[in-house]
Amino acid sequence: MCGIVGVYGHPEAAKITYLGLHALQHRGQDGAKIASFNEKRFYKEGGLGLVSEVFNKERLKRLKGFMAIGHTRYSTVRDKNVSEQDLILNLQPLVREFKYHPKIKKEIAIVHNGQLTNYLKLKDELEDPPRGAIFSSSSDTEVLIHLIARCEEENIIQRILKGLTPVKGSYSLLFMTTKKIIGVRDPLGFRPLVLGRLSNGGYILASESCAFNLVEGKFVREIEPGEMIVIDKKETLRTFKLKSPYIEEGKHSQCVFELIYFARPDSVIFNRQVYSTRKRMGQILAKEYPIDADMVVPVPDSGFSASIGYSIESKIPLELGLMRSHYIGRTFIEPTQSIRHFGVKLKLSSIAEVLKGKSIVLVDDSIVRSTTITKIIQMIRAAGAKEIHVRISSPPITNPCYFGIDIPTKRELVASKHSVEEIRKSIGADTLAYLSLDGLKKAVEDDNSFCYACFTGEYPIR
Amino acid sequence: MCGIVGVYGHPEAAKITYLGLHALQHRGQDGAKIASFNEKRFYKEGGLGLVSEVFNKERLKRLKGFMAIGHTRYSTVRDKNVSEQDLILNLQPLVREFKYHPKIKKEIAIVHNGQLTNYLKLKDELEDPPRGAIFSSSSDTEVLIHLIARCEEENIIQRILKGLTPVKGSYSLLFMTTKKIIGVRDPLGFRPLVLGRLSNGGYILASESCAFNLVEGKFVREIEPGEMIVIDKKETLRTFKLKSPYIEEGKHSQCVFELIYFARPDSVIFNRQVYSTRKRMGQILAKEYPIDADMVVPVPDSGFSASIGYSIESKIPLELGLMRSHYIGRTFIEPTQSIRHFGVKLKLSSIAEVLKGKSIVLVDDSIVRSTTITKIIQMIRAAGAKEIHVRISSPPITNPCYFGIDIPTKRELVASKHSVEEIRKSIGADTLAYLSLDGLKKAVEDDNSFCYACFTGEYPIR
Amino acid sequence: MCGIVGVYGHPEAAKITYLGLHALQHRGQDGAKIASFNEKRFYKEGGLGLVSEVFNKERLKRLKGFMAIGHTRYSTVRDKNVSEQDLILNLQPLVREFKYHPKIKKEIAIVHNGQLTNYLKLKDELEDPPRGAIFSSSSDTEVLIHLIARCEEENIIQRILKGLTPVKGSYSLLFMTTKKIIGVRDPLGFRPLVLGRLSNGGYILASESCAFNLVEGKFVREIEPGEMIVIDKKETLRTFKLKSPYIEEGKHSQCVFELIYFARPDSVIFNRQVYSTRKRMGQILAKEYPIDADMVVPVPDSGFSASIGYSIESKIPLELGLMRSHYIGRTFIEPTQSIRHFGVKLKLSSIAEVLKGKSIVLVDDSIVRSTTITKIIQMIRAAGAKEIHVRISSPPITNPCYFGIDIPTKRELVASKHSVEEIRKSIGADTLAYLSLDGLKKAVEDDNSFCYACFTGEYPIR
Amino acid sequence: MCGIVGVYGHPEAAKITYLGLHALQHRGQDGAKIASFNEKRFYKEGGLGLVSEVFNKERLKRLKGFMAIGHTRYSTVRDKNVSEQDLILNLQPLVREFKYHPKIKKEIAIVHNGQLTNYLKLKDELEDPPRGAIFSSSSDTEVLIHLIARCEEENIIQRILKGLTPVKGSYSLLFMTTKKIIGVRDPLGFRPLVLGRLSNGGYILASESCAFNLVEGKFVREIEPGEMIVIDKKETLRTFKLKSPYIEEGKHSQCVFELIYFARPDSVIFNRQVYSTRKRMGQILAKEYPIDADMVVPVPDSGFSASIGYSIESKIPLELGLMRSHYIGRTFIEPTQSIRHFGVKLKLSSIAEVLKGKSIVLVDDSIVRSTTITKIIQMIRAAGAKEIHVRISSPPITNPCYFGIDIPTKRELVASKHSVEEIRKSIGADTLAYLSLDGLKKAVEDDNSFCYACFTGEYPIR
Repeated sequence: MCGIVGVYGHPEAAKITYLGLHALQHRGQDGAKIASFNEKRFYKEGGLGLVSEVFNKERLKRLKGFMAIGHTRYSTVRDKNVSEQDLILNLQPLVREFKYHPKIKKEIAIVHNGQLTNYLKLKDELEDPPRGAIFSSSSDTEVLIHLIARCEEENIIQRILKGLTPVKGSYSLLFMTTKKIIGVRDPLGFRPLVLGRLSNGGYILASESCAFNLVEGKFVREIEPGEMIVIDKKETLRTFKLKSPYIEEGKHSQCVFELIYFARPDSVIFNRQVYSTRKRMGQILAKEYPIDADMVVPVPDSGFSASIGYSIESKIPLELGLMRSHYIGRTFIEPTQSIRHFGVKLKLSSIAEVLKGKSIVLVDDSIVRSTTITKIIQMIRAAGAKEIHVRISSPPITNPCYFGIDIPTKRELVASKHSVEEIRKSIGADTLAYLSLDGLKKAVEDDNSFCYACFTGEYPIR
Repeated sequence: MCGIVGVYGHPEAAKITYLGLHALQHRGQDGAKIASFNEKRFYKEGGLGLVSEVFNKERLKRLKGFMAIGHTRYSTVRDKNVSEQDLILNLQPLVREFKYHPKIKKEIAIVHNGQLTNYLKLKDELEDPPRGAIFSSSSDTEVLIHLIARCEEENIIQRILKGLTPVKGSYSLLFMTTKKIIGVRDPLGFRPLVLGRLSNGGYILASESCAFNLVEGKFVREIEPGEMIVIDKKETLRTFKLKSPYIEEGKHSQCVFELIYFARPDSVIFNRQVYSTRKRMGQILAKEYPIDADMVVPVPDSGFSASIGYSIESKIPLELGLMRSHYIGRTFIEPTQSIRHFGVKLKLSSIAEVLKGKSIVLVDDSIVRSTTITKIIQMIRAAGAKEIHVRISSPPITNPCYFGIDIPTKRELVASKHSVEEIRKSIGADTLAYLSLDGLKKAVEDDNSFCYACFTGEYPIR
Repeated sequence: MCGIVGVYGHPEAAKITYLGLHALQHRGQDGAKIASFNEKRFYKEGGLGLVSEVFNKERLKRLKGFMAIGHTRYSTVRDKNVSEQDLILNLQPLVREFKYHPKIKKEIAIVHNGQLTNYLKLKDELEDPPRGAIFSSSSDTEVLIHLIARCEEENIIQRILKGLTPVKGSYSLLFMTTKKIIGVRDPLGFRPLVLGRLSNGGYILASESCAFNLVEGKFVREIEPGEMIVIDKKETLRTFKLKSPYIEEGKHSQCVFELIYFARPDSVIFNRQVYSTRKRMGQILAKEYPIDADMVVPVPDSGFSASIGYSIESKIPLELGLMRSHYIGRTFIEPTQSIRHFGVKLKLSSIAEVLKGKSIVLVDDSIVRSTTITKIIQMIRAAGAKEIHVRISSPPITNPCYFGIDIPTKRELVASKHSVEEIRKSIGADTLAYLSLDGLKKAVEDDNSFCYACFTGEYPIR
Repeated sequence: MCGIVGVYGHPEAAKITYLGLHALQHRGQDGAKIASFNEKRFYKEGGLGLVSEVFNKERLKRLKGFMAIGHTRYSTVRDKNVSEQDLILNLQPLVREFKYHPKIKKEIAIVHNGQLTNYLKLKDELEDPPRGAIFSSSSDTEVLIHLIARCEEENIIQRILKGLTPVKGSYSLLFMTTKKIIGVRDPLGFRPLVLGRLSNGGYILASESCAFNLVEGKFVREIEPGEMIVIDKKETLRTFKLKSPYIEEGKHSQCVFELIYFARPDSVIFNRQVYSTRKRMGQILAKEYPIDADMVVPVPDSGFSASIGYSIESKIPLELGLMRSHYIGRTFIEPTQSIRHFGVKLKLSSIAEVLKGKSIVLVDDSIVRSTTITKIIQMIRAAGAKEIHVRISSPPITNPCYFGIDIPTKRELVASKHSVEEIRKSIGADTLAYLSLDGLKKAVEDDNSFCYACFTGEYPIR
């Protein structure tokens, strides 16, 4: 996962982009980078860490111009063995030069949210001599630059449309050339990409609408699956349609997990308000799996929205029996004689007096490996709770994601090999219930536009 | 405000202290320091920043020994003009050498939570030649070391008891000598200080009981106002009584603001569970000032606990209409053409769809200057709320605090010169109500042991 | 300019490389990087700054393996506008993957000392669609990787030989593959490259032999111009010959400026001992341009070796009338009311009592723009010197270098438009003399193997 | 050892001080700090590291005012166990507040070069209760502040004169009050302190005159032993005389080691030009211990000045057979299979071709433990030298220094237990000779004003 932002037509485009990235920080905390363009050249600044750590006054000042695109990076498990220098290399925007015309070279910058499924095959073909393409990063995004550079169309719009044709997978992309900001959403529309308008008439494109609030942008609309939007003047926008030989016209598969967990509650994506959708999941869950209990306790912050819905529907009062620490740093040093559930305790603590002797409905959004929920339940038991009824506001995750959600391999997914009853036992809950797939579909107001593959194994494309 | 922790009788005393300080991070985020003692010498490590930033593996490893005390620092407005080097100098524990006997010098370490009201007068007397005492920091704590060093008693316990006699104000103190950890709470008991027992039989003293949870300590009891507790073996604790010429025996004035705002909801201090006390404030507030509305919205995170109480009592459902960002860094750079309510927006965002057209009860714990609540109300209005009813779970603050809470001068306190109706108008609320003093007393189960001076102006000592 | 080092067959290859780079620090102080190979993968570590700043214990530990190559970077004027992140990107070794066989991908690492003169033309051809090669750095070295990747030979040795065929300019190169270290010197032999043997039987290749001293390597021989040496076992070395369509067989043009200024005095390069060669320049200079004076004063450290020769030949005693500071940091802040010759004064200071009333022979190795020597002369005059006779141990520089020496444009070279007499006047010397070209040839024991283009304008290749 | 600088009457006093400290960097490289005064308050900035690392534009800008004093710190062996935070605490200027009059508090800043021999006794008396003085650093300088603060004179000049009376040892001091810069040299005059005049009429006081060159100051005169100079206007200077009950009037003992090794060659201290004095040592050494050899080789840089004298007197040509690296960082990582003489090799390298088969006079200023010279000799032997004749331009060091030179304990001084012949054998030289005490006296133009205790054991005071 990653967050992307692009700004066109603002005298401080980079600052707006930086604040937009800050609002999208939940989509990636491991690095951030911005590229801007000013009359003659591209400026680039970035680094590892949070948006607020990477950028300072001086760096933002260097990012001159009326256009900018930026990216906040989410590190996956693979990154653990990568040297710091290579992590920096992988930061986006990638900015590369290529030839428009035999005599004209231009730079292009690109940011990408998603995952290309046929990336290795495409790369392989490009690397075969005598082509002998050289890749400078381990990012799948780089293949896109190569594909575009090899096209012979002289028009950049045609070139991107053609360059993207052989690509499979999920991609919301932003390009910046010396004149344009171009936004693209893959034909299946896996990842969100929304358009906003700044108060000065400029435009902003971002992964989620929450990026608009901080910078006083107005939500305009979602970019359509398979749409390419070209912004090169403030008056009119142009729109083009991607064609893919692999994808049936009109078929969409927007990632439902964005609505369940990933997106920020105050965002609007896929034309749905995230908080309300999650609250609805909680309400339907309460209908599907009611229970008699003293209180509803959310796992902070992931279970907050659904727990509100559960509480309202069930009329069981909400209590904040678990607290989340605001001061989690990167690493904590543990005593030699180690502390039970140290990792969870650093993040969460229970309020014993609230929980003692009580029967509790514990609400969270999903269970992946089940290690965290197990520790939370033990913590709540230790605080004296009488009964713990776990309610999960999405169906059991049984399959990995190939389209950009960092879900582990099938082997590590607890629900891929265990029944709900087996999981209940292993996590130590008194009862356990998941929202049904039908319930989820109802909550998201299903219109055949969503991908549920992590719950069903029916992948829209391979 | 500050957080203090002391550990006796644990092979990794410094690590336990460090984790305790992390749990007390809400009491001060500007610096942290730990001193430990190992057979022959004191070790000290610390710096500016969060506990997780200041300490790393290497630094903790250097802090050898079975005893340690630590401190997390809260910066006040005065610190803005102080150089970084001087801020480091002011970090506690202060560790100083003084003479026990004509031939024996020993070091003592001290941490302090509170504020000494006659500090300048005491310092002045000490500095007069031929005494000519030299102070090396601007901290009021340093005067305590001087007072103790000048006593001629050869017993350190007697010396501290005597040294503290002329001191007025609030102080929860921890001392570490080469043999003992000593905890002291001032005779009026302004600041909390709680005792816990570690699983290995060692002891932990801390500002709040939440420090025990992370390190698997068991809550034993609160140190009494005017009590000095001496820990120098695991088997028995000794306890002594401070005598002050200025304070009537048996009079206590525990800071009620700790219960309203400062302490962590999962702590037990002053023999009260904080979350439940705050929830009760919300319940009583709902009884005192009911209103017909669509939803209760807490100001996160300060209004959370009270809003639960308000919602339960009023039967108006709770909705999370405001979200708090988890990624607030130290500084953010704003565009030249500045953004309305930039500061508040960085921290909070509203969920427009939830609030639009609704009548809202907005719950927070207190109003100081009223600037923040004003911006929040404007943000909620901009999101389309129909009515905003502000409910504050404590009485109007009309007087500054001289005992350690960083409340500004009377001039800056909005409630010191304005009626509730005037404040309501200026912040733009439809209705505004504060919890009554009686209601507050009921919520904290008043037993004449509290200081309400910020609401009443009746200071227990000057 | 840059320094390069490669090590084969040592259990701590990276550490040996690091110490070798430290010894070559005078060839580049702006960044350093090392890549090593261990059984399965390449490791890379590097950064901006001095070798001693870039590498620490931890970073060196990560660079596992029996082979390593490294590079210390010299920044040119062009780098001033480049962002820090891009400077890091440009650090060498470049490590890239390419295809050996249709099914086998391998990584190759490369370091380069020199400058390719037809780099832009080669890059241009590679970038033309449908080739559409993508370059990830602004370094001329990257073109080499592309040329090699496009060759269809399956043997890496043949592939490098073929890939280098179209290249013009100066290059001493080291390659590291998963099995071999390969050293290459361009057919004209502009830059040095020497081979040494480690005490454990492993090999070391480096820009200068001074890199061997620190690591206890024995000088074996210089790599020949146009030679490619392949090291993949300790027993035997293999050697190959580069063929260039542009260069006449047997023609060499080793950079004489390496002997005059760039190389370290304790190195042997081009089969000449540098210190002795410079001393000889001073001796011949004394014969060509004798003068009656009280003392010979070297400009430290560049004039040291030649001044020894001048003093011995002329029998005029050497005096250290100028001192060089050892504590020059990156930037110094000057008072507003600026100090005369601030920059030179930070680096050099004169010993007034030594110089006062004396007639002085001031010896340096070369004059480029003449600004520094002018300030030095003013400083010596201010110290009370009676006469200043400047003696330069090389001929006037009249032409820029296209082969890797950072000599400015013709316009900035004082000797390109001014006679010796004009320069004498402008720098304020009493007399000024340069070593003649013939004298220089004598000093370096000319055997038609040198490039004197900066003095003559006769470039060996364009 | 340390370097101190004070500036009075310059609009950028701190910048001038900073440049002065840079020129005195050889007197201490471990930390630097400056305090300035501007109308109302003192400003302080400093840190660990080189002057150029500690100060940047921003920090210097904060040091406002017309007066400033600064210090560069030399770390002794004792510092190795001290935490970084405590090292920062020990940085000077110490700035402390004390009482002038019952109602007036003022700050005073102090820097100190030297060592107080009765410091522990004085400290002990001050710490006895009921005095109970508290010391905040382990620096001997702090005792001076206490002594001054305890005096009851209302005039600061009288107060310092009185406060210093009980003090023994070496001290060159600078004080800064809100109105004055005060310079003091101890009655025996161990350490230098020189006065210069800035071009704008302001004054500068510094450890050595080389500090004046960089900032365009003119040397005025040395402060006399036992003199206190008070600068509070540009027109006139006032001078006072220290009285010590322990020191005979008129007796002086200026540290001869400053002339031998410590001071910079381009300085004038003790009314002697350092470089010329050292050259004279070399000349007399050549007369006392002539030898037939091919070349004189200095140990860089410490043997440079004396080797010039030796070469001139002996008519044996000087050759730079040893080179010093300019890129020595703080730590270097050595391979596991360690390199012989690694430490020396990092700093020095030999030029084999110059030394091979030659008979060499190796000149250095002194031998302390003999480890370094032993390694240098082995390095020169390995380079093929035929004969090595070591000549030391000072007598054998047989006694430790109690007055500020970091000479180790007697046990570690090779000459304290070994004859010259024994040392010769152990270091591996063919011959070894030291300058005689008489020769040294001649070289420094002895006038009974010097301390030779490290050679003779006759300490001027205990």
